[in-house]
Amino acid sequence: MTGKGIYLFEEGRAEWRGLLGGKGANLAEMTRIGLPVPPGFTITTAVCNEYNALGRRFPTGLEDDLDRSLGQLERKTGKVFGRRENPLLVSVRSGAAISMPGMMDTILNLGLNDETVEGLSANTGNPRFAYDSYRRFIQMFGNVVLHLEHRRFEQILEQHKEKIGVQYDQEIPATVLRQVVQDYLALILRDTGYAFPQAPREQLIMAIRAVFDSWDNPRAVLYRQIHKIPDNLGTAVNVQSMVFGNMGNDSGTGVVFTRNPSTGEKVLYGEYLTNAQGEDVVAGLRTPLPVAKLKEDLPEAYHHLVRVTELLEEHYGDMQDIEFTVEKGRLFMLQTRNGKRSAAAAVKIAVDLVEEGKISKEAALLRVEPEQVVQLLHRGIDPSSQTQAIATGLPASPGAATGGIVFDADEAESKGGHGEKVILVRPETAPDDMHGIVAARGILTSRGGMTCHAAIVARGMGKPCVVGCEALRIDLEGKTVTVGTLVLREGDIITIDGATGRVIPGDVPKVEPRLSPEFRTLLTWADGIRSLGVRANADTPEDAAKARELGAEGIGLCRTEHMFMAQDRLPVVQEMIMAETSEERKGALSRLLPMQQGDFEGIFRAMQGFPVTIRLLDPPLHEFLPDREELLEELANLRGRGASAAQIKEKEDLLRKARSLAEANPMLGFRGCRLGLVYPEIYEMQVRAIFQAAVRLLQEGTSLVPEVMLPLVGHVNELKVLKERIIRVAEEVMAETGQRFHYLIGTMIEVPRAALTAGEIAREAEFFSFGTNDLTQTTFGFSRDDAEARFLHHYLHEKILPENPFMVLDGEGVGQLIRMATGSGRQTRPGLKVGICGEHGGDPQSIAFCHDSELNYVSASPYRVPIARLAAAQARIRERERKPGSNS
Amino acid sequence: MTGKGIYLFEEGRAEWRGLLGGKGANLAEMTRIGLPVPPGFTITTAVCNEYNALGRRFPTGLEDDLDRSLGQLERKTGKVFGRRENPLLVSVRSGAAISMPGMMDTILNLGLNDETVEGLSANTGNPRFAYDSYRRFIQMFGNVVLHLEHRRFEQILEQHKEKIGVQYDQEIPATVLRQVVQDYLALILRDTGYAFPQAPREQLIMAIRAVFDSWDNPRAVLYRQIHKIPDNLGTAVNVQSMVFGNMGNDSGTGVVFTRNPSTGEKVLYGEYLTNAQGEDVVAGLRTPLPVAKLKEDLPEAYHHLVRVTELLEEHYGDMQDIEFTVEKGRLFMLQTRNGKRSAAAAVKIAVDLVEEGKISKEAALLRVEPEQVVQLLHRGIDPSSQTQAIATGLPASPGAATGGIVFDADEAESKGGHGEKVILVRPETAPDDMHGIVAARGILTSRGGMTCHAAIVARGMGKPCVVGCEALRIDLEGKTVTVGTLVLREGDIITIDGATGRVIPGDVPKVEPRLSPEFRTLLTWADGIRSLGVRANADTPEDAAKARELGAEGIGLCRTEHMFMAQDRLPVVQEMIMAETSEERKGALSRLLPMQQGDFEGIFRAMQGFPVTIRLLDPPLHEFLPDREELLEELANLRGRGASAAQIKEKEDLLRKARSLAEANPMLGFRGCRLGLVYPEIYEMQVRAIFQAAVRLLQEGTSLVPEVMLPLVGHVNELKVLKERIIRVAEEVMAETGQRFHYLIGTMIEVPRAALTAGEIAREAEFFSFGTNDLTQTTFGFSRDDAEARFLHHYLHEKILPENPFMVLDGEGVGQLIRMATGSGRQTRPGLKVGICGEHGGDPQSIAFCHDSELNYVSASPYRVPIARLAAAQARIRERERKPGSNS
Repeated sequence: MTGKGIYLFEEGRAEWRGLLGGKGANLAEMTRIGLPVPPGFTITTAVCNEYNALGRRFPTGLEDDLDRSLGQLERKTGKVFGRRENPLLVSVRSGAAISMPGMMDTILNLGLNDETVEGLSANTGNPRFAYDSYRRFIQMFGNVVLHLEHRRFEQILEQHKEKIGVQYDQEIPATVLRQVVQDYLALILRDTGYAFPQAPREQLIMAIRAVFDSWDNPRAVLYRQIHKIPDNLGTAVNVQSMVFGNMGNDSGTGVVFTRNPSTGEKVLYGEYLTNAQGEDVVAGLRTPLPVAKLKEDLPEAYHHLVRVTELLEEHYGDMQDIEFTVEKGRLFMLQTRNGKRSAAAAVKIAVDLVEEGKISKEAALLRVEPEQVVQLLHRGIDPSSQTQAIATGLPASPGAATGGIVFDADEAESKGGHGEKVILVRPETAPDDMHGIVAARGILTSRGGMTCHAAIVARGMGKPCVVGCEALRIDLEGKTVTVGTLVLREGDIITIDGATGRVIPGDVPKVEPRLSPEFRTLLTWADGIRSLGVRANADTPEDAAKARELGAEGIGLCRTEHMFMAQDRLPVVQEMIMAETSEERKGALSRLLPMQQGDFEGIFRAMQGFPVTIRLLDPPLHEFLPDREELLEELANLRGRGASAAQIKEKEDLLRKARSLAEANPMLGFRGCRLGLVYPEIYEMQVRAIFQAAVRLLQEGTSLVPEVMLPLVGHVNELKVLKERIIRVAEEVMAETGQRFHYLIGTMIEVPRAALTAGEIAREAEFFSFGTNDLTQTTFGFSRDDAEARFLHHYLHEKILPENPFMVLDGEGVGQLIRMATGSGRQTRPGLKVGICGEHGGDPQSIAFCHDSELNYVSASPYRVPIARLAAAQARIRERERKPGSNS
Repeated sequence: MTGKGIYLFEEGRAEWRGLLGGKGANLAEMTRIGLPVPPGFTITTAVCNEYNALGRRFPTGLEDDLDRSLGQLERKTGKVFGRRENPLLVSVRSGAAISMPGMMDTILNLGLNDETVEGLSANTGNPRFAYDSYRRFIQMFGNVVLHLEHRRFEQILEQHKEKIGVQYDQEIPATVLRQVVQDYLALILRDTGYAFPQAPREQLIMAIRAVFDSWDNPRAVLYRQIHKIPDNLGTAVNVQSMVFGNMGNDSGTGVVFTRNPSTGEKVLYGEYLTNAQGEDVVAGLRTPLPVAKLKEDLPEAYHHLVRVTELLEEHYGDMQDIEFTVEKGRLFMLQTRNGKRSAAAAVKIAVDLVEEGKISKEAALLRVEPEQVVQLLHRGIDPSSQTQAIATGLPASPGAATGGIVFDADEAESKGGHGEKVILVRPETAPDDMHGIVAARGILTSRGGMTCHAAIVARGMGKPCVVGCEALRIDLEGKTVTVGTLVLREGDIITIDGATGRVIPGDVPKVEPRLSPEFRTLLTWADGIRSLGVRANADTPEDAAKARELGAEGIGLCRTEHMFMAQDRLPVVQEMIMAETSEERKGALSRLLPMQQGDFEGIFRAMQGFPVTIRLLDPPLHEFLPDREELLEELANLRGRGASAAQIKEKEDLLRKARSLAEANPMLGFRGCRLGLVYPEIYEMQVRAIFQAAVRLLQEGTSLVPEVMLPLVGHVNELKVLKERIIRVAEEVMAETGQRFHYLIGTMIEVPRAALTAGEIAREAEFFSFGTNDLTQTTFGFSRDDAEARFLHHYLHEKILPENPFMVLDGEGVGQLIRMATGSGRQTRPGLKVGICGEHGGDPQSIAFCHDSELNYVSASPYRVPIARLAAAQARIRERERKPGSNS
């Protein structure tokens, strides 16, 4: 054998993962820091490789080492392998550095045989337990070592249960289990031609071989091929002495968290059962007690546990989720890992650990998943309430909602229209269901992924949504939804939690979103560390105020078209569109001017002097006209009821205009600066409104520098012509008001040509803002709506694309354009301010890309501003970790 | 004065353009090679600069030089400046290296005064001519030197004409002209306070000053600013002795071409008038004679002319357009320039000149404009026929067509449907007119540019089209079209020539296109020189045969969707689309398979082993279904006449499918390889058809390597998945037929992401073909149809874009992607074959770009293949000129 082939747990190190495998390294680490881990040893991955190289033979000396190691186990436990009295039992587990499906996993209770089972029975005073353990061991061994089908053993068990008329395994008495064991042993002899090995040492050697052999089984080989894992890593084997929590009232088993995983409060939190094994807890036959009760029952073990948990938290620097067993008053640690926790707890724990001096601010910032804190920013289910989810789907759009079930969109609309709270439940939704989605409090579907119709629409509306909840069986005809045996009918109240995907029957208490003091503290630390600015996309004074409250340092995208859509303005906008001459158009625009100016004044006021980037009108004009099919219908109605010629003509004119403005591909059509160039009056009105609003604010004493942004520029000349016109309007406003002001003129970069010629464009543009939604559409040649409805789901499912590029920025393609454009733009104009304002501005992975690409800021929807602040800080910290020298 | 300030013509050189100006250098060159140019001299641009530097004063010594030079003119001409008898008259012209608006141009007849006018009268025996010359001289001098308004002189002339009751200037008798002169002189005295200078030397000095001063007049200064011409170039002044062709029957004037400009035949071609001046020819009062007649009238002058024209052609190496004057039997050359010529003549002359040993093949190839030879490839008007165009518009789509005028599309359809030849005449066309365009022989519009609806559609159909013919006044109500005073009515026959834009009343003889022997020769030379391959876009065996005939070296793009559209296949294609299951879909596809295989066999056969690149299905499936509005109508009809439930259901299903396939932006939607990935059966059928056809051909003895091309790839994984499937089908076909074959699998590069990640994509792709139509759409974010209908015209008109990017490749944006992709593709796969197959493949400027970018080939529509061959050769020659070292 080459080198040392077996390490006792106390000889290992966490860093020797390659040699000891993940599991072995972890057991070694716990042992090394003095935790009461049941003793054991690890056979290294090197041995596995040597075994395979020798044509599946043990290397010389391995068996001697094994015997020596077993001897040490016996000494430590005071038990003896194969001895009837107080026998040593062990578990055997595989332990590759990376866990793989198809690899042999676990054999428990190895060491049991016809003799030792009796010793175990006597030891525990529980013959049922002893024979059940033996039965399970034979079954596991028969299956994974001897390759008998699992089913064969189950059949025998079922026959016995039928015979005595019981339903559950735990109802089988010890006497019957003894017969089951006999039948199992007979099955093995019959099917393999060999008797089940009664010698524990033979059992162990066969089990170790089985682990080594499973490294090369076809499923594991295929898995390694697909995931590009080298074949020569090998797997380790862990042999660990068994402990039992069911050896009487001085034994027990439990699970604790070092802090409350729901609130983050610093208390030992968990539960335990006296005289029980882990699976008794799972079976739910007995109710566990709060861990505090252990203090009364087994005070010594309890105090030991408290010390150990403190040590573990100290050692790992994080809240731990710990499994323990007390065997005859003696505490053993079976597992520890970083505990899962709610978003609120994650934030509180991270901040508390800093304040306790246990971790740095940077570490705390890295502890909180930006996506997780989304929950804290939406109405959610009260984490302290006792709720039982009946099913869990994909968390498609955050927020919790409660309402009566409805099964179709019309019903949702009619009930919702009368103020009733309803949840629309559908296998999936389609554009036809839009009116129902609008009327419902939340959406629940049994099919679809994160980019299905319901998910996209609900996110767009900020409405709670759970999709792809496959446990639901929806009967649209019968108007029922079934989960397991539970049947819900139309009108039954349910609650959905779009942040976690949970579906809960009935109403449950909710909490309004608020930034906890700890969350505020964490975000303040984030602000102190991040170099990337965070702005918000906001179109109204209300949104602007919310954005400021959540920490936005300005507005990165104020869309002006939403203002055009407002009910009191749309008729004037339509009049402007219907205008035959530039004069008529100017007439309508002059009535829009004071309204727009009012909008901008409100937004500037809300932003208190922080920068505001206003994008001039972007969408194609036909978006402001009624739908053509609708118009056709209205026209048919008017004619049917003999309306006046003037009324009919008006509709006809509207229809004609709508038809003449229709486009084959509106996304690539007559919109953005193209509109502004052909109809100069529109942008002139808009910039006049911006500048007049700015003058008003300046005169009120607020200092500000409005940023005028031109959409869809692809050639520097577009910008050049528009810039001249904007400057002219600014000069006019200054002359008229006698008030001078500063302003910037910049451009969206949202078509590839703009990115490719950014060096030219920067000669005119005073800032860039990447419109990554449109840039993704044009770079991929994907129409977002069409792609998500038709083929993107297939692409993601088949891994043709690693991510949905509309959710996570495509670094290789779109990102390449962003880096090129930023570089060449700054070459022309050093210090050029560059940001992004697509939806990616709120996605953590994309934010990291923006940080790494040295953008100045990201702009996200107001509720994602805290996420962006956190993600930007994380990007900065990770960058420092990659380049320790960099401090700027 | 610094250096030599005045050069006699014989002292100059063509290369001294900077010093002598363009005109001076040219006159010097003609003189230098021994042509009888009326003697003269040039005052250099250096003198102009010195004059300006001295504050508008003549440098010392200039006047002495001027007198010396005048003396030499007098000696050469035997005339004396200012002497009554046989006076020397001169012209004075500015002569900057670059001609500029606002600069003083020309003063003729300088040297005339009250005395010399009498001498001229006596000399010519034509007092009317003498006084008219004097009058013109005073008017020119008064205007450009003394800055009196031109209008003031014209008023005097008009008063005299009114008084004697004549309409035209040439009707004014000498006696009245004498009075006009008196009135002119009086006007000058009254308005300037000085008498008109009678001394010729004073006249000359004032004229020279006026030329120098005009260099700095505001219009010229502004022009230089705009065009970035340095202010310190200065202008030269040319002083040349006048000659007269109207000094009797031994004098005359004429214009000749050294070869026939219509056919290219090598004969002296032109006309002349005895005892006349140039303006007599222009006035059209006398009919000029063929130049051959000069041989009889003035044989000596004729022979001199022949020698001179030979010399000129020899010297300039090209067919010359020459103005000459014979004064008293003596020949003078007034101007020579390269003559304008027809496309056929251009080709013949270029080839003949090579065969006469006068120019190199390279020079010949550069002589022929690729765009010009388009005419030679379409049915055209017989160049030998006498036709008189009534108007000329933009040549939007080549070819000549004759038919009766119709003014609307319905009329065009009904008449055209009955076999009548009609020309659709409209102010402009819209998509509604489509059926009329299809039915008409040609389209004529009064509005629109090269990218208007009519132009695009007609080019797409290969139908003759003239647009933007602004001279037409079209009255759609009255059904007339008026040009000047000519009124044409519905049914009147007209002919349009889409190659030149001409509109001709009635029918005219036409010639079928054919490649003349000279054209074939020229193209053979082109093939010998060019390094860029030329393929054709062809979808049928007929197109493939035509492409071969015109010299295509393969098919660069064979679109398979046109095959799907064929009338006998569409129902099967629709069945395939309507299929609910993969099985049903396969059923329909299996019936399409033999048809597709037949197509490919035909194309392979026509291409005789030349490479054929076949693009798998590209358009969205809804393009194969009827229009939704149409279906709605049909459905209403079926219901109205109580059709069977089955019939109604069928339509309803079709409508439902059409609706479900409808997309917001089909250009960016579910098409190309996206279709192929989601419905594997479609591409599998297509590649099976390709490979089975290849096997058939191989078994017939034709060797071939089919190239399978995947459209709209944006991520290497798309290609990877499809490539595996294609290879599987190829293996199957080989196994089934026992015939092995080679094939290539490559990809279109037509979305920016493909270009940006070309290095990755080349790991899978065996060739690239740039689909520049779609790449232009996605790079600019322009939907071609929408852009051309809505804003592109505005962009071109306002010079926001220099060219229509759908006609001329945008080198800066789209071209940058092409170069990046070619570079990174070849880095991954050295020797990667790269071509383009968008419409740009037939555009000379874009072809030059492709050559310079080191692409392997361009692919153009069959009729543009000769243009591409020529343009590719020119690109190669120009490259060699730029980099004389390069010969590879």
